[in-house]
Amino acid sequence: MIYPEPIQDLISQLAKLPGVGPKTAQRLAFFLLNMPQGEAELLATAIVNARTKIRYCSVCFNFTDTDPCAICRNNARDNRIIMVVEQPKDVVAMEKTREFKGRYHVLHGAISPMEGIGPDDLRIKELLMRIQATPPQEIVLATSSSLEGEATALYLGRLLKPMGFKVTRIARGLPMGGDLDYTDEVTLLKALEGRQEV
Amino acid sequence: MIYPEPIQDLISQLAKLPGVGPKTAQRLAFFLLNMPQGEAELLATAIVNARTKIRYCSVCFNFTDTDPCAICRNNARDNRIIMVVEQPKDVVAMEKTREFKGRYHVLHGAISPMEGIGPDDLRIKELLMRIQATPPQEIVLATSSSLEGEATALYLGRLLKPMGFKVTRIARGLPMGGDLDYTDEVTLLKALEGRQEV
Repeated sequence: MIYPEPIQDLISQLAKLPGVGPKTAQRLAFFLLNMPQGEAELLATAIVNARTKIRYCSVCFNFTDTDPCAICRNNARDNRIIMVVEQPKDVVAMEKTREFKGRYHVLHGAISPMEGIGPDDLRIKELLMRIQATPPQEIVLATSSSLEGEATALYLGRLLKPMGFKVTRIARGLPMGGDLDYTDEVTLLKALEGRQEV
Repeated sequence: MIYPEPIQDLISQLAKLPGVGPKTAQRLAFFLLNMPQGEAELLATAIVNARTKIRYCSVCFNFTDTDPCAICRNNARDNRIIMVVEQPKDVVAMEKTREFKGRYHVLHGAISPMEGIGPDDLRIKELLMRIQATPPQEIVLATSSSLEGEATALYLGRLLKPMGFKVTRIARGLPMGGDLDYTDEVTLLKALEGRQEV
């Protein structure tokens, strides 16, 4: 024996989390063991709660505890514009700007041949059904600017434009506070391509 | 609203873990939400299980699910030598060497005036009672070689030697694979002081 079984089990479960190796899992386990018992149980309860109460919104596929989600239920939002994002956290990031007032559609991933993720693995079918039922005036592709995000945007553009939808892509360029000197060439190229008159 | 409440709650609970900031907590939360439900619940159960089943060994104060712990119950271990360590994880580290066959005593910390941890906050009283009841032939101080670990070893040495016990301190020196060039001066000094004839 190295650790008593309940500790060993906790370490193994923690080590399944992303970015948590055996050493970190051990540190977290000992932290949980040294916490007041009530505190540790709050975490356990939060995990179970989140898993039982959170599901996908049947409209936009964002995480929600009500269906439809708060954004889809909000009548003040603009139905004419749908922003397509990869992940629920992207919705949160965009909401923080307080600028976008339209609707969202969460794909839950991006096309990645390397990882065997094709269009059918994303919520694209649901997007098509949704925009055919209520056609928006604009579809904003806000997938990330990674290889996978760009591939997904390319795919969606080619799919949706022939259907007559106005499809836009968020700008790629120099991040705020970014130094030209420290910016990679592809970003600089995109920044140049996307230049606008002042 | 940013996140539905069960997600927000999970993120807050995760953010209490050491080394987990808001961004990591968010990543972990989404990972848990995307896991198969059973898997996520395994972690929740492991936390509760560890907290309910694990307590301190009444002899050595290591974490255990039985009392006394597996090491204290093991008759093959040598009663004549007690190794004093700071944390349960130090016991595991030492056990991995498969060299030490004696008993342990876990202090659960080290003396640290900066953090307000004095001798009374550690399991020193329990160590005294234990060695007075069954005097060992040697007490090995295996606290870490940090400022706090050294202070604790110094304190214990001054406390136990006048009581007639043989007290030793584990060697400090160059770690295996360590390069002299990359080793700090204090370690080199300790390595020099602790030199032995070959």
